[in-house]
Amino acid sequence: MAPAANGINGNGTAASNRLSQAPVHEPGSGEALIHIKATGICGSDIHFWKSGRIGSLVVEGDCILGHEAAGIVLQCGPGVANLAPGDRVAIEPGVPCEKCFLCMEGRYNLCEDVQFAGVYPYHGTIQRYKVHPAKWLHKIPSNVTYAEAALLEPLSVVLHGIETARLSLGHPTLICGAGPIGLIALAAARASGAHPIVITDLEAKRLEFAKSYVPSCLTYQVRPSVEPEQQAREIRRLFGAERDPYFAPRTVLECTGVESSVVTGCFAARRGGSVVVIGVGKNVMNNLPFMHISLAEINLKFINRYRDTWPAGIACLSGGILSLKELVSHTFPLEDATKAMSVCSDRSSGSIKVQIVDEVDEIL
Amino acid sequence: MAPAANGINGNGTAASNRLSQAPVHEPGSGEALIHIKATGICGSDIHFWKSGRIGSLVVEGDCILGHEAAGIVLQCGPGVANLAPGDRVAIEPGVPCEKCFLCMEGRYNLCEDVQFAGVYPYHGTIQRYKVHPAKWLHKIPSNVTYAEAALLEPLSVVLHGIETARLSLGHPTLICGAGPIGLIALAAARASGAHPIVITDLEAKRLEFAKSYVPSCLTYQVRPSVEPEQQAREIRRLFGAERDPYFAPRTVLECTGVESSVVTGCFAARRGGSVVVIGVGKNVMNNLPFMHISLAEINLKFINRYRDTWPAGIACLSGGILSLKELVSHTFPLEDATKAMSVCSDRSSGSIKVQIVDEVDEIL
Amino acid sequence: MAPAANGINGNGTAASNRLSQAPVHEPGSGEALIHIKATGICGSDIHFWKSGRIGSLVVEGDCILGHEAAGIVLQCGPGVANLAPGDRVAIEPGVPCEKCFLCMEGRYNLCEDVQFAGVYPYHGTIQRYKVHPAKWLHKIPSNVTYAEAALLEPLSVVLHGIETARLSLGHPTLICGAGPIGLIALAAARASGAHPIVITDLEAKRLEFAKSYVPSCLTYQVRPSVEPEQQAREIRRLFGAERDPYFAPRTVLECTGVESSVVTGCFAARRGGSVVVIGVGKNVMNNLPFMHISLAEINLKFINRYRDTWPAGIACLSGGILSLKELVSHTFPLEDATKAMSVCSDRSSGSIKVQIVDEVDEIL
Amino acid sequence: MAPAANGINGNGTAASNRLSQAPVHEPGSGEALIHIKATGICGSDIHFWKSGRIGSLVVEGDCILGHEAAGIVLQCGPGVANLAPGDRVAIEPGVPCEKCFLCMEGRYNLCEDVQFAGVYPYHGTIQRYKVHPAKWLHKIPSNVTYAEAALLEPLSVVLHGIETARLSLGHPTLICGAGPIGLIALAAARASGAHPIVITDLEAKRLEFAKSYVPSCLTYQVRPSVEPEQQAREIRRLFGAERDPYFAPRTVLECTGVESSVVTGCFAARRGGSVVVIGVGKNVMNNLPFMHISLAEINLKFINRYRDTWPAGIACLSGGILSLKELVSHTFPLEDATKAMSVCSDRSSGSIKVQIVDEVDEIL
Repeated sequence: MAPAANGINGNGTAASNRLSQAPVHEPGSGEALIHIKATGICGSDIHFWKSGRIGSLVVEGDCILGHEAAGIVLQCGPGVANLAPGDRVAIEPGVPCEKCFLCMEGRYNLCEDVQFAGVYPYHGTIQRYKVHPAKWLHKIPSNVTYAEAALLEPLSVVLHGIETARLSLGHPTLICGAGPIGLIALAAARASGAHPIVITDLEAKRLEFAKSYVPSCLTYQVRPSVEPEQQAREIRRLFGAERDPYFAPRTVLECTGVESSVVTGCFAARRGGSVVVIGVGKNVMNNLPFMHISLAEINLKFINRYRDTWPAGIACLSGGILSLKELVSHTFPLEDATKAMSVCSDRSSGSIKVQIVDEVDEIL
Repeated sequence: MAPAANGINGNGTAASNRLSQAPVHEPGSGEALIHIKATGICGSDIHFWKSGRIGSLVVEGDCILGHEAAGIVLQCGPGVANLAPGDRVAIEPGVPCEKCFLCMEGRYNLCEDVQFAGVYPYHGTIQRYKVHPAKWLHKIPSNVTYAEAALLEPLSVVLHGIETARLSLGHPTLICGAGPIGLIALAAARASGAHPIVITDLEAKRLEFAKSYVPSCLTYQVRPSVEPEQQAREIRRLFGAERDPYFAPRTVLECTGVESSVVTGCFAARRGGSVVVIGVGKNVMNNLPFMHISLAEINLKFINRYRDTWPAGIACLSGGILSLKELVSHTFPLEDATKAMSVCSDRSSGSIKVQIVDEVDEIL
Repeated sequence: MAPAANGINGNGTAASNRLSQAPVHEPGSGEALIHIKATGICGSDIHFWKSGRIGSLVVEGDCILGHEAAGIVLQCGPGVANLAPGDRVAIEPGVPCEKCFLCMEGRYNLCEDVQFAGVYPYHGTIQRYKVHPAKWLHKIPSNVTYAEAALLEPLSVVLHGIETARLSLGHPTLICGAGPIGLIALAAARASGAHPIVITDLEAKRLEFAKSYVPSCLTYQVRPSVEPEQQAREIRRLFGAERDPYFAPRTVLECTGVESSVVTGCFAARRGGSVVVIGVGKNVMNNLPFMHISLAEINLKFINRYRDTWPAGIACLSGGILSLKELVSHTFPLEDATKAMSVCSDRSSGSIKVQIVDEVDEIL
Repeated sequence: MAPAANGINGNGTAASNRLSQAPVHEPGSGEALIHIKATGICGSDIHFWKSGRIGSLVVEGDCILGHEAAGIVLQCGPGVANLAPGDRVAIEPGVPCEKCFLCMEGRYNLCEDVQFAGVYPYHGTIQRYKVHPAKWLHKIPSNVTYAEAALLEPLSVVLHGIETARLSLGHPTLICGAGPIGLIALAAARASGAHPIVITDLEAKRLEFAKSYVPSCLTYQVRPSVEPEQQAREIRRLFGAERDPYFAPRTVLECTGVESSVVTGCFAARRGGSVVVIGVGKNVMNNLPFMHISLAEINLKFINRYRDTWPAGIACLSGGILSLKELVSHTFPLEDATKAMSVCSDRSSGSIKVQIVDEVDEIL
């Protein structure tokens, strides 16, 4: 039995959320057994933890959470050619079917039969030992820490969004939201040569952090009582678009999932620009200004996770293109996983990214 | 004074809607004087005629309507090299500023200073003689009639939508709406090699026409009382997507501007597909299924009119790639322009495309 | 042992080219046993047959040729869910590794470890019974014959080329070469709404066939003694580009693999256009007019076979978007396979597409 | 009469190359008179200076050279709304016709009637006072110097190449050539987040400079005696592509115009990658490995100058995304323009970018 694991019950009641022992499995054909050394906690983990569901995804039994992880290979099953024990790896948590037309077209992130770590019934990465297909493990070089490698998962979301946005040098870019995804988007947009960059948030403290993280960015504090169209005007002014409409944001990376933020983004974007909806919030949104979006010919793009992003992400971290370690505000040992969940879900904690790390030596 | 012109007042009251005399202007530098031989009536003309405004566009004084037109060059102003009197031409009705960054980037359809024929204060094409910049006149070959050439304007909308959609051979395609734009989209999708094609509408009669126009299409009658998600399921079944999800529509050409139709399109599209919003309806739309659109990574695209489409449209008509003349259900002489407006605005008339033609010889 | 198979030895000498008995294999996990009902012969088969190699691909032992095939499923191995005995299928002949980064990105046609039917050491489809992975078999509807379904392979080459070219309605298009690929490109370009279309070839007879196959095309007979730049001028004149440079070909589909044809295509294309090199000829080409290509900003694109094309191809054939059966000029029973090879390799035979069919009932 | 200007005669003989007086023109409608404060010398200037022609462009009379320039507005002609005297501006040197279909499509860089400063018969920027259309002047902010602003022209070439390449975060990138364009490409690729980056050159000294300019790059010294295919293997090894083929360069920015370098780039690129030919050298190139390029499905892209790049370039310089001032190795006053030409054309001078600046106060 594994030393420790973080379980969650099917209805999200606190009573069933607990740390428990989990079995250690033998790696099957094409699989590897990993000692997980670091896992970040994501908003969706908290959502499952608290309410037992996200949209149609329902937790119907014990399920170990976590999907932002890195670790070390302990053992390889038969037929694994690309890995060996001792290799340090980042985990790509979704395992697609590889048979449907979407997988065959390379859009495996859209596979309807994906088995995603940490989404019931597939156990996640907040445990010590996990078996995972070797194909979805990515070797990391020695100058990338486990903590950084665990951030490759949220970075992947951002890279997929940026690839979708076709961000390029000197493109004025608006980032809505200064949570973990928004901050990674900020760093990635800057590393892509976007300029000027404005980032928005409700909280002044988050914007201060953003400014200290990427000093060349401008910040805009959202006021919920103000109409989106008015806020968009103020944001455009920050960009200098009043003087020269070229400088209205060509790309909006929407990282909040909040309706008013999406609408603000649509009004802020320059004509012919793109709004990439990275944050997923409500099932249904209202108040979309279709007439404006049509006249401005705004390309409204949506993404579902990521595909083909780990190698590029690793290159970015290893090559010093991006630095993400500043985002890890709290670190807990695996044994304190439930405390980590609490801190992460408590907005007053001021946490950005909470990670669970396991410094224990491989003891199998 | 010109023999006849169709005016509309600023508040859209019937009292000011009338036929009146309009002046004949001399073509200035780079301009040509055209004898308009055919003009189609568009839904937006009816909208201005009835309510005096569309969104922020307000008719504040007399304004001749019409923007789907073709005619013959009577006279060229100084500096016109590409045209000569006697040339038969189609009119591209929007004249952009050519100075803003959008014009310079070639996205002249997004120019904020466009002067669009038939939108106050710029007079339109439902008159006998009109001056227009030669740069925005496109010569038509002898095997294209004026009536067909006038249809290049709505065809342009569709071509821009299809270019945006990247429609290609064997792509399953859904067309929402069997009005004039939907029907042209149907013909153009078929001419692009899209297959299978399903077209929807509320009215059985329109679907019958669609079926007779493009016999290989399938039709789906919309029932307003049924949830969009359920209708989308039925549409997907028509495509054979239950058997093979590949056959869910890769492209949805939304030509109604109706909210429930947009939502149906988003649910009907295959994962990774595109929904191109061609029809513009309400200022604001609600009930957009953002979670679904995100998970399905649907690309929601919007278009504003067209750019660079006349030459391709002329090639299509001249080369027999498309046949649009079947769409002209009613033709009126210029003197009966107000009657034409009435027929076009009366849904019970069964009209598809109403055109005003002027057979009178050039008499200037 | 299988009743008949067409073998070729490693050095391409006629002595080892023969019909022979081949074993019938049991389908393994994920595989199906197919009774091949139709196989087309491709230029590459003839090349292997005559010279025993194409570039670095060398035939080092017995190898059954053929890769343009369709048949009926006789038996399914374990784990096959998408097929059942009696299903009529088209064969996608390349089986990629599904592990390399190219496969994962969906560009499986570029996989360096592809196992391609008919390329040594992987036996091809000119035999009665063949085992193939079920994933790479595509069901065909009842209105598509085996002979047509076998043409999905060369059609796939063309579809990949057309997708690469982004061919669209009313795009002037030049097709270089009126061999089987050029003719399919002609039909597919027309079905995509391209117009005008000019097709070139050295032989008048082939151009006559092209003209009877797609009457709206224009033809241009290549004269080897004339400079490519001069021929390009003549071709542009056919398009009407002298009158209006817009009508110079926006897309050139190069289907010959002949150097002078590539150069002609580069000079013929409009500024900003694309030349898609579909035909592969010599290892190395000379005389590329780089200065011209740079100034004209021509996008020189190359393709390697195809990916994700069978479903679209099946939709095209089943929906009557394309008709390819006119291209089958000769049909031989499997027992006369060597004769089929001879006819196909004899230019004086006037053959277009030679197919080997097996009408024998399933007799296993 | 203007105080000084640098003329060149039609046959490129040294005798006619000289500094001379040039007239000062009044700005016409839509034009502005600029006091040129900085002009960089480009290889094409040297080419004209020495041989009097580049390809079909022949210098048939006196022509002032120079097209990389910035200055201050002295006077505006009628109808100029976007500029006022005292504005600091960068000059976009090509003035397209704005009437042809290429201009209308926004690809004004391909206009066949472009009037390009410094290409006979259009006088260039190595003079004190120049009249230029206001539309093609771009205001620069106060934190960008004239010397930097003059570099916006070569930066534009690179930005257009990078936009064409769709360079993105973590993309392995090869830059062929460490001359001025190659070095700017190096800085721009790094600023786009490309990684790893390898830059090649014949000369060790240039590679040393590259390494000091962008320390994270790797360098590869070209040996002319070694086959391109072998050099490509060595370059791929530098990228780590032997260990993981993902790391072969996804993008090659070819900045030499040398045949063997183009061929090396084609062999070095990963399958499915792009080679962007930025450097233009010989009229005709040989030895292109077409079979390899086809099998690897390499996208061979060519560019002609730039379009829509100044605003993004200004954002890059102003926002500190790129630093180019390190590239200015020599600066001469306008009176020493011929000396500047000599230094620039003398390879032993070790010059990178030579600029001519005019510190003289506006004295008109």
